[in-house]
Amino acid sequence: MNVLVVNCGSSSLKFQLINNDKQDVLAKGICERIGIDGRLVYEPKNGEKEVTDAPMPTHVEAISMVLDALVNNKTGVIESLKEVDAVGHRVLHGGMKITQPVIINDEVIKVIEECADLGPLHNPANLMGISACMKLMPGVPEVAVFDTAFHQTMPPKAYMYGIPKEYYEKYAIRKYGFHGTSHKYVSQRTAEFLGKDVKDLKTIVCHLGNGASLSAVNGGVCVDTSMGLTPLEGLIMGTRSGDIDPTVVEYLCNKEHLTPSETLTILNKKSGMLGMTGISSDYRDVSEAAEMGNKEAINCLEAYYYRVIKYIGSYIAAMGGVDVITFTAGLGEHGIPLRREICKAFEFMGLMFDDEANEHANAKETVITKPESRITVCVIPTNEEIQICKETVKLVEQQKNA
Amino acid sequence: MNVLVVNCGSSSLKFQLINNDKQDVLAKGICERIGIDGRLVYEPKNGEKEVTDAPMPTHVEAISMVLDALVNNKTGVIESLKEVDAVGHRVLHGGMKITQPVIINDEVIKVIEECADLGPLHNPANLMGISACMKLMPGVPEVAVFDTAFHQTMPPKAYMYGIPKEYYEKYAIRKYGFHGTSHKYVSQRTAEFLGKDVKDLKTIVCHLGNGASLSAVNGGVCVDTSMGLTPLEGLIMGTRSGDIDPTVVEYLCNKEHLTPSETLTILNKKSGMLGMTGISSDYRDVSEAAEMGNKEAINCLEAYYYRVIKYIGSYIAAMGGVDVITFTAGLGEHGIPLRREICKAFEFMGLMFDDEANEHANAKETVITKPESRITVCVIPTNEEIQICKETVKLVEQQKNA
Repeated sequence: MNVLVVNCGSSSLKFQLINNDKQDVLAKGICERIGIDGRLVYEPKNGEKEVTDAPMPTHVEAISMVLDALVNNKTGVIESLKEVDAVGHRVLHGGMKITQPVIINDEVIKVIEECADLGPLHNPANLMGISACMKLMPGVPEVAVFDTAFHQTMPPKAYMYGIPKEYYEKYAIRKYGFHGTSHKYVSQRTAEFLGKDVKDLKTIVCHLGNGASLSAVNGGVCVDTSMGLTPLEGLIMGTRSGDIDPTVVEYLCNKEHLTPSETLTILNKKSGMLGMTGISSDYRDVSEAAEMGNKEAINCLEAYYYRVIKYIGSYIAAMGGVDVITFTAGLGEHGIPLRREICKAFEFMGLMFDDEANEHANAKETVITKPESRITVCVIPTNEEIQICKETVKLVEQQKNA
Repeated sequence: MNVLVVNCGSSSLKFQLINNDKQDVLAKGICERIGIDGRLVYEPKNGEKEVTDAPMPTHVEAISMVLDALVNNKTGVIESLKEVDAVGHRVLHGGMKITQPVIINDEVIKVIEECADLGPLHNPANLMGISACMKLMPGVPEVAVFDTAFHQTMPPKAYMYGIPKEYYEKYAIRKYGFHGTSHKYVSQRTAEFLGKDVKDLKTIVCHLGNGASLSAVNGGVCVDTSMGLTPLEGLIMGTRSGDIDPTVVEYLCNKEHLTPSETLTILNKKSGMLGMTGISSDYRDVSEAAEMGNKEAINCLEAYYYRVIKYIGSYIAAMGGVDVITFTAGLGEHGIPLRREICKAFEFMGLMFDDEANEHANAKETVITKPESRITVCVIPTNEEIQICKETVKLVEQQKNA
């Protein structure tokens, strides 16, 4: 079965056409600057990357260009659109109603619309992608895979904030968590890679990319995660502050004469590593500056590691122990000193770090602790597209057999 | 040496007259409704509690009534004011400049004024108390003991937020921590009680009162604490939310048409246990409701315990282990099920809880783990007044000898 995996932003659209039987990416790419001017970056399997500037007033034109590239004589990887058996969409926020991937129907669309308040930048864009695909590929089943779904197993003690209950009841203010597709894929893949049953493992997944979150996965079930109502809560990230005293919001509004929304924009876009250092949101740039002795960069990295260490400690306590800690996403897969600094903090619990393995673990599935270590640490590259493809195939086949 | 320990709020003034040589409280009480009407509650050692309504337009009249009560024929415990050798003031916020108790002089007063921005409710009230005492007891040395001072040893990785550095530089926005006098007293008293040197211990102090905070104390030095820029951050408290996604502030401003300051008032005064349950800010009331099966009360207590457990776990990771966990303040000293629920979560680390000892540990110094436990857990009643008295005596004697 071939699945077109689609991830829409407000002015962008990432895609991969994946053959599920062979777990093979036939083509991938991105449409950028939708609604501004428009550009398609397209890369077929075994082919050259091709950049085409073309007007894309809406997501419909963007999808249309992608579909043309997939089938045309020059760049095509399939004969006709009939070979696209299903579309899998990444959708940000499913609120409390959606806890699983679902076949998209009117009801699902309504829920995505309702949750736009909780994901104001993403949910409307996700809907544009869905309706564009429906228009251009009528009859092809579409599946929505939600970034929040995997975390919906959290118990109330993990997702309730200490705020008046009326705000939970009226506005559904609670912790949701994000990167769920990645946390699910990586926690399951970790167990497979170790030859274990995920049901027998207490796993902590460290998804450390430009956005970053941790999850505590007990027996395959997510019991806690560091992002909250929105992806701002938790760790220090590329441009996001993560946890702060909520009073900081009031303080900045008053001192800098900002609206709450302007302050939140600063906390989302100009904070984190970028804000703390004034250098860059990129871990590599900050690391380089730290190596040159830049004090703010050194403090920033120490604070970054320290926050991850504290979250890991809190999840060990939450689960009453941990069997595996897995690093994934950009920094998790490539950050050699990052993994070392974080893991060394758990030597007191019998974690025995393997420096040699860590040096060679970049972006491939590896164990980076010694065999006798009481906690196993892995590097497992994430693959949200494959996970979306798998979830899509599963649902479409269930529907066929029903 | 007799020390008058003073703790001023904006409309209240708590006091104790302590004889330091005998560690004896000669008299204690509170002035309430200062600036409204005025009431003195006064209790001499071995005497009856006495309530007197009398106008108190300012803290000067309040202190004046306290001093009269201390020396008059009917309720007095000393012959004359000459027997008050020093005054020790609890002051909320010393910012980054004050890291120790200090003899009050013009420079110290200036710092307390400068930090009023960081402690807008408390610092101005503390100053009123200081100037009232100066006026009524000229020449008597006064000492300021700051709630933030003990935490000033935290390293940057613990106190820096992930926000643009200019806000740290311009407005000193960082984690400060509070309840410092209690955390200092309790961590030192824990070591004494166990017959150990505080320098050899990794201690986690759980100060759980109506306000609540944890601290990680490594070798007598505070390395982290759960409150932040203000006492709002961290644990779920009686009426404070503790940690939330900072976006909640924006969300509530927009949804409820509130200013940031109004929203912060809700997070400080109407949240926590009170807000989550709609029943009470008092742990006893919430516990009672939970026992009757009230679902919100049950969820609230579970969330309360869970947050403490996660913070303890994070501090264990931060210090690379823990020797002692100490419970103090109202809930910490009296919460039998609370201590059990929190401690049981660490059995996986070799903590062996002593249920029997826990049942009988209320508000007295007790070990509530078994002798073979790998982590020792204590109950140590806090005593901020004695600590302020000790700090005051130490400084005044140093000054005399200098």
